[in-house]
Amino acid sequence: MNAPLRRKPSPVDAPPWQLGDIVDELRAAREEWRHTHDRRPDKGEREFPSRDALSDIVSKLCGALFPMRLGPADIQHGCSEDFYVGHTLDLALRALLTQVRLELKHLARPSEPDAETLEARARDIVQQFAAALPGLRRLLDSDVEAAFRGDPAAHSVDEIVLCYPGTLAIIHHRLAHTLHGLGVRLLARIVAELAHSSTGIDIHPGARIGRSFFIDHGTGVVIGETAVIGERVRLYQAVTLGAKRFTVTADGTLEKGAPRHPIVEDDVVVYAGATILGRVTIGRGSSIGGNVWLTHSVPPGSVVTQAFSRNEVMENGAGI
Amino acid sequence: MNAPLRRKPSPVDAPPWQLGDIVDELRAAREEWRHTHDRRPDKGEREFPSRDALSDIVSKLCGALFPMRLGPADIQHGCSEDFYVGHTLDLALRALLTQVRLELKHLARPSEPDAETLEARARDIVQQFAAALPGLRRLLDSDVEAAFRGDPAAHSVDEIVLCYPGTLAIIHHRLAHTLHGLGVRLLARIVAELAHSSTGIDIHPGARIGRSFFIDHGTGVVIGETAVIGERVRLYQAVTLGAKRFTVTADGTLEKGAPRHPIVEDDVVVYAGATILGRVTIGRGSSIGGNVWLTHSVPPGSVVTQAFSRNEVMENGAGI
Amino acid sequence: MNAPLRRKPSPVDAPPWQLGDIVDELRAAREEWRHTHDRRPDKGEREFPSRDALSDIVSKLCGALFPMRLGPADIQHGCSEDFYVGHTLDLALRALLTQVRLELKHLARPSEPDAETLEARARDIVQQFAAALPGLRRLLDSDVEAAFRGDPAAHSVDEIVLCYPGTLAIIHHRLAHTLHGLGVRLLARIVAELAHSSTGIDIHPGARIGRSFFIDHGTGVVIGETAVIGERVRLYQAVTLGAKRFTVTADGTLEKGAPRHPIVEDDVVVYAGATILGRVTIGRGSSIGGNVWLTHSVPPGSVVTQAFSRNEVMENGAGI
Amino acid sequence: MNAPLRRKPSPVDAPPWQLGDIVDELRAAREEWRHTHDRRPDKGEREFPSRDALSDIVSKLCGALFPMRLGPADIQHGCSEDFYVGHTLDLALRALLTQVRLELKHLARPSEPDAETLEARARDIVQQFAAALPGLRRLLDSDVEAAFRGDPAAHSVDEIVLCYPGTLAIIHHRLAHTLHGLGVRLLARIVAELAHSSTGIDIHPGARIGRSFFIDHGTGVVIGETAVIGERVRLYQAVTLGAKRFTVTADGTLEKGAPRHPIVEDDVVVYAGATILGRVTIGRGSSIGGNVWLTHSVPPGSVVTQAFSRNEVMENGAGI
Amino acid sequence: MNAPLRRKPSPVDAPPWQLGDIVDELRAAREEWRHTHDRRPDKGEREFPSRDALSDIVSKLCGALFPMRLGPADIQHGCSEDFYVGHTLDLALRALLTQVRLELKHLARPSEPDAETLEARARDIVQQFAAALPGLRRLLDSDVEAAFRGDPAAHSVDEIVLCYPGTLAIIHHRLAHTLHGLGVRLLARIVAELAHSSTGIDIHPGARIGRSFFIDHGTGVVIGETAVIGERVRLYQAVTLGAKRFTVTADGTLEKGAPRHPIVEDDVVVYAGATILGRVTIGRGSSIGGNVWLTHSVPPGSVVTQAFSRNEVMENGAGI
Amino acid sequence: MNAPLRRKPSPVDAPPWQLGDIVDELRAAREEWRHTHDRRPDKGEREFPSRDALSDIVSKLCGALFPMRLGPADIQHGCSEDFYVGHTLDLALRALLTQVRLELKHLARPSEPDAETLEARARDIVQQFAAALPGLRRLLDSDVEAAFRGDPAAHSVDEIVLCYPGTLAIIHHRLAHTLHGLGVRLLARIVAELAHSSTGIDIHPGARIGRSFFIDHGTGVVIGETAVIGERVRLYQAVTLGAKRFTVTADGTLEKGAPRHPIVEDDVVVYAGATILGRVTIGRGSSIGGNVWLTHSVPPGSVVTQAFSRNEVMENGAGI
Repeated sequence: MNAPLRRKPSPVDAPPWQLGDIVDELRAAREEWRHTHDRRPDKGEREFPSRDALSDIVSKLCGALFPMRLGPADIQHGCSEDFYVGHTLDLALRALLTQVRLELKHLARPSEPDAETLEARARDIVQQFAAALPGLRRLLDSDVEAAFRGDPAAHSVDEIVLCYPGTLAIIHHRLAHTLHGLGVRLLARIVAELAHSSTGIDIHPGARIGRSFFIDHGTGVVIGETAVIGERVRLYQAVTLGAKRFTVTADGTLEKGAPRHPIVEDDVVVYAGATILGRVTIGRGSSIGGNVWLTHSVPPGSVVTQAFSRNEVMENGAGI
Repeated sequence: MNAPLRRKPSPVDAPPWQLGDIVDELRAAREEWRHTHDRRPDKGEREFPSRDALSDIVSKLCGALFPMRLGPADIQHGCSEDFYVGHTLDLALRALLTQVRLELKHLARPSEPDAETLEARARDIVQQFAAALPGLRRLLDSDVEAAFRGDPAAHSVDEIVLCYPGTLAIIHHRLAHTLHGLGVRLLARIVAELAHSSTGIDIHPGARIGRSFFIDHGTGVVIGETAVIGERVRLYQAVTLGAKRFTVTADGTLEKGAPRHPIVEDDVVVYAGATILGRVTIGRGSSIGGNVWLTHSVPPGSVVTQAFSRNEVMENGAGI
Repeated sequence: MNAPLRRKPSPVDAPPWQLGDIVDELRAAREEWRHTHDRRPDKGEREFPSRDALSDIVSKLCGALFPMRLGPADIQHGCSEDFYVGHTLDLALRALLTQVRLELKHLARPSEPDAETLEARARDIVQQFAAALPGLRRLLDSDVEAAFRGDPAAHSVDEIVLCYPGTLAIIHHRLAHTLHGLGVRLLARIVAELAHSSTGIDIHPGARIGRSFFIDHGTGVVIGETAVIGERVRLYQAVTLGAKRFTVTADGTLEKGAPRHPIVEDDVVVYAGATILGRVTIGRGSSIGGNVWLTHSVPPGSVVTQAFSRNEVMENGAGI
Repeated sequence: MNAPLRRKPSPVDAPPWQLGDIVDELRAAREEWRHTHDRRPDKGEREFPSRDALSDIVSKLCGALFPMRLGPADIQHGCSEDFYVGHTLDLALRALLTQVRLELKHLARPSEPDAETLEARARDIVQQFAAALPGLRRLLDSDVEAAFRGDPAAHSVDEIVLCYPGTLAIIHHRLAHTLHGLGVRLLARIVAELAHSSTGIDIHPGARIGRSFFIDHGTGVVIGETAVIGERVRLYQAVTLGAKRFTVTADGTLEKGAPRHPIVEDDVVVYAGATILGRVTIGRGSSIGGNVWLTHSVPPGSVVTQAFSRNEVMENGAGI
Repeated sequence: MNAPLRRKPSPVDAPPWQLGDIVDELRAAREEWRHTHDRRPDKGEREFPSRDALSDIVSKLCGALFPMRLGPADIQHGCSEDFYVGHTLDLALRALLTQVRLELKHLARPSEPDAETLEARARDIVQQFAAALPGLRRLLDSDVEAAFRGDPAAHSVDEIVLCYPGTLAIIHHRLAHTLHGLGVRLLARIVAELAHSSTGIDIHPGARIGRSFFIDHGTGVVIGETAVIGERVRLYQAVTLGAKRFTVTADGTLEKGAPRHPIVEDDVVVYAGATILGRVTIGRGSSIGGNVWLTHSVPPGSVVTQAFSRNEVMENGAGI
Repeated sequence: MNAPLRRKPSPVDAPPWQLGDIVDELRAAREEWRHTHDRRPDKGEREFPSRDALSDIVSKLCGALFPMRLGPADIQHGCSEDFYVGHTLDLALRALLTQVRLELKHLARPSEPDAETLEARARDIVQQFAAALPGLRRLLDSDVEAAFRGDPAAHSVDEIVLCYPGTLAIIHHRLAHTLHGLGVRLLARIVAELAHSSTGIDIHPGARIGRSFFIDHGTGVVIGETAVIGERVRLYQAVTLGAKRFTVTADGTLEKGAPRHPIVEDDVVVYAGATILGRVTIGRGSSIGGNVWLTHSVPPGSVVTQAFSRNEVMENGAGI
């Protein structure tokens, strides 16, 4: 036997994979995709918004909206605070302008309007967004107060702003909803997903939500695109305000666009795990119990609970 | 034609928003809020704990508690490990002292005790917290072992420490619970929310949890402030140990403080999606099935499952 | 009065905790654990994979797989893209090789094969993993297209790649599943938990999932180790494909290894909150309604909904 | 026993050094030093300014002084600029206040004045420093203009601010000199050394320098503590304005405090490598040639050059 | 007098400086400057190259030119290296294009050519710069070899590339000189100052330097704008190749543009501290001794040393 | 002619350079170099020390040597300090071990000893280096005290450690000299260049320097490889202790290895700009004046000054 010619590898050897080949195959896969989706290979620079950029923008907007709570550690009331707010807002809005340009260019693909028109639109969007911020701050103040009233465990409004995932979710939503209304829906969606990722609360930017809104705990909450929520509404974890999706259209695709999520009127409370589906109306002041499954409207003042309050079987229990 | 006087903007033009105006309006909104909440505009430095600081502190404490698993890559048993633990603990405890001071000052607002008394209290709190750490490590070891025994997919205890969200949640909880017991409830809450954000497991720092506790998967678990959990208890995802919140007091606010969450005795298992509400007792050794909705106590050894084991309707199925 | 000899502390005093003692006690706790678990105190360097390293590797692989969407902002089609893909892949695969070595060494504890054999195995694993990447890209393209078809709110495939948590989850899963199949199960698990933490979607790396898979919203989804999912399957949030865990073996431990999670055939849709437990088969083309609790097989084409479509009690409602 | 029992080390073995012993010996060395220098081992927190902190402060002050040139990339004239200046100055001055406190506490060691007096002094120092900044900006503008006039290679004043090491040195010096005048000499020194390290220009903070000062190239320039420089003075690289140090006092120490460096009057030029030593006066409008060694005063309008204009020996040259 | 009503400040009080006033005064100073220098206050975005950006670009170019020495730690010959070089170059050239645009726009101020012409020029410049890189690498290889031959202390060419400040200086110079030749002189200057700051070697980008150039030690070297240096020239620290600046023009300004620095022919060595001034020629193969002061040409093969080889006075020496 | 077919480029077009071609040409240049220098293209991983890694190591060693001055801001005497020192040293020494391995492998090229022998040597070197640290600390204390005694401007020893470039240089040198003595000369050289770059002081690691050494100002100091410096020596800026390089060997190369730099005995002072060349001896207690050029030995107690104390020509001065 004269064979073991090939010694075993050691950590200093070159790795055995064929880097060049894999790069070639990955290019082939990309080209196939681009061909299928009719992407032009010579399009030039990438035109697409960036999740990281939006994360930074939202973080700056949070600081500008709540400088003493969500801003840096060492600012103060008065001059110091205004300079911080002004500078931070300046950075955030310019960065947002860049992202808005990217979305507009991305959407512009088929018809390709001229660059100056896009620029004018982008500026107009950010200007309107900027003008909306003071109003947003007041709305968010109402949400914070609602959370304070709604949670027996809260000791101060400051705690609400700093610790509650529901606060984080509603700040993101109100920013995202404003962007959505201004037509930059992809940016809005990215902002919403930033909150979804860190809180488990998934609110579509299209949802319309009144003042003094509060979500407690929050993990698993889903609120759909066309949902309409009144004032002083309170939700708990794992509540779904969804579409009733069982009907499928003739060609096998799902219906689009039309109002398909619930209307929840003022002063409604929806407890944990409740599922409300379809364009139903939950009348003002109603209370929807935990785990309730609801696919029809209920009148104002309803109190809905599960039918089976003692539904479980005690397999070896002697009784209760 | 003599009109297009106003040329279209280009990306090098100054942005069109009125930064100064928006800053003024945001200040007005803040002043309104401060007026409503009776905040003193000349209060001086911000006194509030920082979520980022606590995140860093917890990360250091994790390293100090489990140096070979959650510490840096290149330490070793022996001297090297002790130096790492000592230095990391030193940094963490000092940083914690700063945060404790901030919470005490924040809470001190109405009565304003003197600075030295606050300082003495802050030091006392951190000293007690530090002294509790070796005991916490032993408790956490019991949790890791419980996870290893409880999950057929686990191959080693190391995997439990490194990969399981339930481990992350219980480490955070045991730290938060200790802080809560020492009176720094805001810090405790922030620590709890750090875990909530990255695991979807929401345990109130007040909850009392015995040794050898294990949560599998975990997303959507909610454990309330006054819950009491015995030893060797196992929970799955989306379990709620909550308050029964339907009763509302006369003045429209929610009741506070009193025991209102379940007592779960030793050796109980609660399967995914089960909801247990109110100050009920789940007797030792019981097993609560998936999706069960339970609002009353059950005796030791109970096995509770859903009443409707074949409840679903087959709309077009010929049978099963 | 001659007593307050001991002045109150000020922030510049040394902290009062006994750092040395706590370090000693923590060491004692570690030694106890190591003794119990038979760890050798003189083992030398730490041999364990790093979550942070894997997070960085996955992030690089995402960039290499989708350079124009998940890569850096300023690359372009053509040369630029290939250089980026090649360099990023090079970094990712080398870093992965390091992590694979760490897992193999960790697993090697009892029998201790020689270093060169481990090295050869590690290289072989990464080589195979690298070779699988172009195929993975194609599979993922099918998933992205499925998401686009499945969600009426989606405006472009780009949006799917950038914003959808379900996309993030399936990218992580397909990478994790490949690692799992190559025997590095701890790495696979860590990759799965990275997705779990940021999306709330918990897919065990062992689960086999066919092409064109789509999870919408996603928070709370749990898919077990031996689940088998066909092509064109769609899941919504909080769906569980779990084991039926009520039976416990005689010695009190849980059964291991055997197939214990559902088989979901092609073209099935499972709506939000549905729970399917045990080794049951959901026949091709079936539709499982929201919140359904299912522990038996259903034939192809079944439409399963909750039995109680109007189960809730209206406590004060006049009717509906 | 004849046995190479001890195998050779491999990279995974524990390192052979005795970490604990070295730490002990280093502690012994520190204790010896502290004993010699009468340092109190129980002094509590470190009270010493930080070079990194000052580097950051100076960088912020540069931005606040020259926002469009030394500030961040994306600010603009008008509101945006003022907000940036205000916020940056706020951060810089607060950080400076912290450093001033540290120096005052450090210097306070022997006599230990009360904390509130120190605090009042620290605030007074920073207030005066802040009030001096607009004047400093005007002085620096005169320096920039002087550089532009003095260097035939300069194309714009902007280039001077951005590229010239002499500009960096004079900005640092004017800040350091102001701090020096306010009594925080250690901070002043650290600021001077920051410039020294990056430009090779070593100006003692005590040196008094008039407006329109310009140093070209600059490496190796040294300007002593009691030097006095008039207006419109120009220096080249490697110029020394030093003390004449040959005389040593009887007890072997060097003389302190008294004026011992040159006075350079208005409109003087000193060429590269010239050395001027002692409390001599270089009369207004004089020109001191390269490499000149000067230890006595010269009257206004002097032109001093080396005596040996053809001093070199041509060893093998036939002539020139 | 019963007055000290005003308590002493404590660290939590607001700082006493008038931030708003200082910001106003700084703005006044800026406006004065802008008025003097005729800057248009409504100019829009800043158009100026960034030192930090160029530092990063040069660092990337160094990596692309010498991937195994100045690139990241873990690349290899072959595919891996080319991908790294390609990707790094791609990033560097795009970033450079941005900086070139900024300089062109800055210079364009008076005449304001249209944006597309500037863009075309910018692209042309970077294209030519990119095409020059392979030639630069070869030139730099000759410099490295010259250093290896010229320094008895050097053990390998790798050491030269990694450790020698002279190498750093010549890499920067050859890049800066190329930029200078392409008309982006401000970028060139910034690159030169980057080297000046970290090595103390100050070479004007305009200087023309032949292959196999070596500077040893280097601190204090100054080479002027119109200097011309042949092949295989060697310089030591503190050598000046400067202009003879004593003559001043009638209107008090310094002469510009014309050749005014030395010509150093092939194979010349200039020892430490030598100063050569004016448009003189140092003939091929000459050797200029340490500290020599030379203001006239010398023929090929000259050996010039100081006239005073024993010039010093021994004040108390008995003899030598 | 109606032709402007080729539109002008805009910033979104792809850049015009041929990235692929340049990468190819750069590879060709590298291959040529490797061919010339006989580098093996299939050598595997890079084996070369890293400047950044050494910078970090030195920074950690500085912290471990002077924890209260060069360590982080918040440590204290006692336990806290020891834990910091131990952990930091642990990190530094392990990182150094990695760098030592890299240098040994690099040097090993021709003869290629086995891996385990190299590993043993590397460990031995770091062990000896570690053991030398306490002695180094004591030596450095003597240097700090010498600086304090030698500079009339110094107010405290702490200022010396924090602000003086001479201190930085001697710390680096003593570390580098130790590494040099242990045979890792490339590491030593890199450490020396780190100091050179930030202080302008260039000390070859081979130079032997006695205790209580002080360099003031320092820019431009050069100390050669075989220089020997006694105790209590003081140098000022721009002093050269160099080789006398005029003699060149017959084959045109420079002589190597032999002692060729000055011996400076105890208690010597060398003033700014003095140049001492060759293997001469400066006798104990001598004083060498500024700008003196010295190429021969002087006996103990010599005071050497420039011969021309009034050498300059006053061109238009009426007298002096």
